[in-house]
Amino acid sequence: KTTEVSESETLKSHPNLILTQESVAEIKAHLGSIPVFDATLAKVQEEVDLAIAEGIDVPIPKDMAGGYTHTQHKANYDHMQKAGVLFQLLGDEKYAIYIRDMLLEYAALFPTLGRHPQERSYSRGKFFWQCLNDSNWLVYTSQAYDCIYDWLPKEQSDHLNRTLFKPYADFLSVETPKFFNRVHNHSTWGNVAVGMIALVMDDDELLDRALYGLEDDNIDPNELDDDGGVIKDKDGKAGFFANLDSPFSPDGFYTEGPYYQRYAMYPFMIFAEALHNKKPELKIFEYKDGVLLKAVDALLNLTDADGEFFPLNDGQKGMSYYTASLVSAVDIAYYYGSQRPELLSVAKAQNKVQLDATGLAVAIGLKEGKEQPFIKKSMELTDGRNGDEGAVGILRHQDDNAAMTLVMKYTGQGLSHGHYDKLSFSLYEDGEEVLQDYGLSRFVNVEQKNGGGYLKENKTFAKHTIAHNTVIQDETSHFDYDFVTGSRHHSDRYVFDASNPQIQIMGAKEHNAYPNTSFHRTMVMVKDSTLAKPYIIDVFKVLSNTAHQYDLPYYYFGQIVATSFKTEAPKALEPLGTKNGYQHLWKEAESTANADHIQFTWLNNQIFYSITSATHAKDKVLLARTGANDPEFNLRRDPAMILRKENTASAVFASVIEPHGVYNAVSETADNAYSQFESVTVVLDEEAYTAIVLKMTSGASKLLILSNLDPNNETEHNLKIGANNYQWTGAYYFQ
Amino acid sequence: KTTEVSESETLKSHPNLILTQESVAEIKAHLGSIPVFDATLAKVQEEVDLAIAEGIDVPIPKDMAGGYTHTQHKANYDHMQKAGVLFQLLGDEKYAIYIRDMLLEYAALFPTLGRHPQERSYSRGKFFWQCLNDSNWLVYTSQAYDCIYDWLPKEQSDHLNRTLFKPYADFLSVETPKFFNRVHNHSTWGNVAVGMIALVMDDDELLDRALYGLEDDNIDPNELDDDGGVIKDKDGKAGFFANLDSPFSPDGFYTEGPYYQRYAMYPFMIFAEALHNKKPELKIFEYKDGVLLKAVDALLNLTDADGEFFPLNDGQKGMSYYTASLVSAVDIAYYYGSQRPELLSVAKAQNKVQLDATGLAVAIGLKEGKEQPFIKKSMELTDGRNGDEGAVGILRHQDDNAAMTLVMKYTGQGLSHGHYDKLSFSLYEDGEEVLQDYGLSRFVNVEQKNGGGYLKENKTFAKHTIAHNTVIQDETSHFDYDFVTGSRHHSDRYVFDASNPQIQIMGAKEHNAYPNTSFHRTMVMVKDSTLAKPYIIDVFKVLSNTAHQYDLPYYYFGQIVATSFKTEAPKALEPLGTKNGYQHLWKEAESTANADHIQFTWLNNQIFYSITSATHAKDKVLLARTGANDPEFNLRRDPAMILRKENTASAVFASVIEPHGVYNAVSETADNAYSQFESVTVVLDEEAYTAIVLKMTSGASKLLILSNLDPNNETEHNLKIGANNYQWTGAYYFQ
Ligand SMILES: [Ca+2]
Ligand SMILES: [Ca+2]
Ligand SMILES: [Ca+2]
Ligand SMILES: [Mg+2]
Ligand SMILES: [Mg+2]
Ligand SMILES: [Mg+2]
Ligand SMILES: [Mg+2]
Repeated sequence: KTTEVSESETLKSHPNLILTQESVAEIKAHLGSIPVFDATLAKVQEEVDLAIAEGIDVPIPKDMAGGYTHTQHKANYDHMQKAGVLFQLLGDEKYAIYIRDMLLEYAALFPTLGRHPQERSYSRGKFFWQCLNDSNWLVYTSQAYDCIYDWLPKEQSDHLNRTLFKPYADFLSVETPKFFNRVHNHSTWGNVAVGMIALVMDDDELLDRALYGLEDDNIDPNELDDDGGVIKDKDGKAGFFANLDSPFSPDGFYTEGPYYQRYAMYPFMIFAEALHNKKPELKIFEYKDGVLLKAVDALLNLTDADGEFFPLNDGQKGMSYYTASLVSAVDIAYYYGSQRPELLSVAKAQNKVQLDATGLAVAIGLKEGKEQPFIKKSMELTDGRNGDEGAVGILRHQDDNAAMTLVMKYTGQGLSHGHYDKLSFSLYEDGEEVLQDYGLSRFVNVEQKNGGGYLKENKTFAKHTIAHNTVIQDETSHFDYDFVTGSRHHSDRYVFDASNPQIQIMGAKEHNAYPNTSFHRTMVMVKDSTLAKPYIIDVFKVLSNTAHQYDLPYYYFGQIVATSFKTEAPKALEPLGTKNGYQHLWKEAESTANADHIQFTWLNNQIFYSITSATHAKDKVLLARTGANDPEFNLRRDPAMILRKENTASAVFASVIEPHGVYNAVSETADNAYSQFESVTVVLDEEAYTAIVLKMTSGASKLLILSNLDPNNETEHNLKIGANNYQWTGAYYFQ
Repeated sequence: KTTEVSESETLKSHPNLILTQESVAEIKAHLGSIPVFDATLAKVQEEVDLAIAEGIDVPIPKDMAGGYTHTQHKANYDHMQKAGVLFQLLGDEKYAIYIRDMLLEYAALFPTLGRHPQERSYSRGKFFWQCLNDSNWLVYTSQAYDCIYDWLPKEQSDHLNRTLFKPYADFLSVETPKFFNRVHNHSTWGNVAVGMIALVMDDDELLDRALYGLEDDNIDPNELDDDGGVIKDKDGKAGFFANLDSPFSPDGFYTEGPYYQRYAMYPFMIFAEALHNKKPELKIFEYKDGVLLKAVDALLNLTDADGEFFPLNDGQKGMSYYTASLVSAVDIAYYYGSQRPELLSVAKAQNKVQLDATGLAVAIGLKEGKEQPFIKKSMELTDGRNGDEGAVGILRHQDDNAAMTLVMKYTGQGLSHGHYDKLSFSLYEDGEEVLQDYGLSRFVNVEQKNGGGYLKENKTFAKHTIAHNTVIQDETSHFDYDFVTGSRHHSDRYVFDASNPQIQIMGAKEHNAYPNTSFHRTMVMVKDSTLAKPYIIDVFKVLSNTAHQYDLPYYYFGQIVATSFKTEAPKALEPLGTKNGYQHLWKEAESTANADHIQFTWLNNQIFYSITSATHAKDKVLLARTGANDPEFNLRRDPAMILRKENTASAVFASVIEPHGVYNAVSETADNAYSQFESVTVVLDEEAYTAIVLKMTSGASKLLILSNLDPNNETEHNLKIGANNYQWTGAYYFQ
């Protein structure tokens, strides 16, 4: 009898992974009175009913991403996960039957399969060409399985555990250690897949493997993956906790960048929810000072005004917090965090919720009108597991005239998806790119473009330094484009101070991008009360022990309105160089500054912008455009203005970047089409200080002095420039 | 005593031009209860109060467009016109005083002036560099003057008439006959300027001059203006009625194109309103079967889904029916037409009204919620004063999946702003250009770009045939780019039938673009019930008596996804040619079709499009981009796919153009990324018939047979193709 009781307790224990018996009861009590939840549920039901009507299709694996069998297996796990929710919330057995029948087909298929016939991955899967997708399958399917576990006769669940799920978990882990035992977003999926099914099957050995990795993996520490990343973590750790420890900084920044963070957030958050439900003793949401909740906040802040992620490292433009994994992440962060009303406004924009207790809480919050605007503020998000491997700095200004966002990257390499872009930046106005980071070169899931995979131009251009708004020495990328070297180093934050909304400053140094060469870039966002919009001061100080060529590109958009330098039309367009991405740029013009400053004005999105830059008379200005040596037209044809200083050991690139006017095509008026700056001059450049004078067309003039060696905001400085003495406290003087 | 009564009657007669004593009383009775009117008035008051606070400034004329004196004189007439309205509607004398004081300054300045010091115009003005702007001044200022005429002591109005207005009217007409006695939008402004002030001063001789032109102008019939247009009308007519007769077709299409029609609508409509008020016996709104009211309707139909005008001929993109002249035109058309509720919905979008009886009527209509959607339908708008000089054809399809608009131009030359673009077309989806007409090369009022005037690239590229989606023979533009030749001819409509929403067809012929060569283009918009969006069949038949090279460009936007032909990356980019606009195109790739059809797929605005085209194996496909030989970066960098047939007397370009899929960057899904067409084949091409087979990927196949010589929709045809016999009635067979 004791046995029977315990058996019946076991029978009643599911669902207990994401949905629980308590949350199901609570949701059922609210159904019909929680608009966002009800609407999401109705859509899901419609979708699954359609899938059920079309019938079960579990094809023999054959195709690459985008192909038929790939797409079908993807649809299957998605439909099963949703059917599980519907079965629990609506109680209609047809959903359970659908899952059961499909799982039985998978259980019949699985033992017949070797590795997937497509051979492009270093970790080929079963149902898919790579284990990553198989892990996706298991993360979703585990949830469906949990929802019908108690409903299934025990012999069927035993059969599935034995024939499908346990072997599948072993396949993804012990049989594919290079995939499983890494610190990488793919491995996170692998760990979570094994962990989720472990929780469903109550298999503690499997759970241990998921949390802490395989003890012995026999991985060669120099082995690389398809993307050129090293397999083996430098600390030798693996498993879910290692993937939580290492790529996340204490601020919740994920070193691969927001695009991959977005992708990884789903397994991180959904497994955390499952662990919270089944292993509350792990206090997973408090782990590393609540890093998972901070990660959601970090990710929401790494977006432009449209909610689109900054395309740092490999990131496809257009991906935004409207994506499904962020719906899940926001709901989970709201529920397991402190129910911050700012998150509700994001959820409101998303207009759907996760169909569990977290989504219920969000839907109730929204129904009660509790949302508050999510206001993105200036902030620095440190990189590195201890937060001491550089950072991403974000300066923002928002008022009725403009929303400007300046993003500067002074992080570590960012694992295999990292770009060679030390101290690069991008600038946004109102959700539009003003000065861009190219992003990745890939059309995800567009089959005609290399099966939707990375294009070769990602490696030959997009990752290279010249694809970024930062300094390139001698037409060679940072770290000589060597991943191992790049991974050994990180930039160092120098100053970040957004406390004065009129003068926000950030700066960083990089000592390892080139041998015997150091970089120090400072970016200041100034909101002058006499000007409608903020302007940016960009001071890039380079110091080397030998003479070099230095290029600093600005990737603008739109049409050139005026240049202070004379441009000539070449008879034929030649590539700008032969390697390191230069071979992909056409040289549209090559000019000499011929003056102590240059000015460059362009028009984009009906807004006039200018860059005014201090120069030596012999400095060059190159106008370039991507697209050379691109037979398949994989690259966009985007323009850049490149400042070039030749044959010099040290250099200061000092510029002002400003939006200054508006064109109206309907009234045909050009308001403030001219730059508000007359000139930018470097009046002093020493080891300890660099001083810049900005002359404005109004006649006003500004002096910026940067302390190059001591950013402490309590240090007192005293500096003589010409006849004048300047005294101030802190990292900079600006008047 | 009789004299006194008549004097007092005279005193009470103003305003009687645009505002009348009756309309002023009626408006005053409604103020505060007509939201759009009240809001417009409040904004105008705010603007004028600010101008009054800044004080009167009537500088000595000196600058070009965009410069200080130009801008100030423009602001002056604008503020005076508005102040006149405010004086009448609000009764505050400060507005009358402002106008009076400013007019007295102008009256003091005028006699001291010779022609404007800037020498760029063939018709230099007084306050402005060209008489056009002086005419603008007088059209607006006449309205202000009318509003204070009765308020002014008679000696002041006599003084202004004698010192300023009468001499100014003479200056614009008898002293500048080349400007005044033309058929051209500039002259319309001149005629209306003289006519408006004539009506205010009750000067019938002046009015006659305005309406019918100068009797003797001594203009050399071969003389050209700044734009290369002939001055003298071919029929020798001049004046307002000539400008109404000749450029407008009976459908209300204005031969210069919608951009200039928009500009001319203000003087046409405002003068018509004035004539209606003061010379109702002219029945101006009934003139030429109500052509002015039809013109407003034509113009509203010559827009994309955003209300932006098709950039036919010289037209700046972005100009739309939100412009002030269209606010005026829509209100006037509503009031003097049949109060069509469709016009109210346009006025509602414009969200402002003209501050007179017409705007009052619109505001009341809107307040009463009478508006109905303005649904743009497929239509043909004839060109030529008698409607027999070709036409613009517009095919539209709109449903929940897509709004597609196809615009084909088979008009006359379009006066001096005409482009050499016979049988060209452009395609829109949802207000975005899919296949573009380049438009003009100019940044209106952007001073850095040639003072805001036309750029040289307008003549060297934008007007040339290669800038358009039509056939070019031997790299030479239509009519050998000769304006006089082009003006002697027009294309001929052949068929236009939009009666079947599933199969809409238009076609035209052109016999004069090249010697001994004829063009026949047919465009069909097909809505297949099995496809989500309509597709376009484009059949361009060329016939010559000798062998030539034929190019047909398609100016797409965005990024190439796939090409059936092999593309190679050139080592250096060379211009596509040396003249006729070809020198401005970079040749990015040159391929050989190597097959009996080519396919070209691209992605723009997250939509997949394809062109599938029948080819001979030796046909070439060129990928090109504007921007060569453009030292000042005046041209946009826009791409084109060019089909080239070499060394052939006759040719048929037969293509299908289709939107077929959607990319979603958030879900990263590519739905229907592949063309729905397998191939396009010309199965028969004879003098009388051309037959095209479209094979779809679904396996379905369509046959289009065009009757090339007889478009009559009652003619019975009988044709054998291969083994099959086809019988049908009308211009085409499609099955
Ligand atoms: Ca954006
Ligand atoms: Ca548009
Ligand atoms: Ca847009
Ligand atoms: Mg990058
Ligand atoms: Mg460190
Ligand atoms: Mg054109
Ligand atoms: Mg004719």
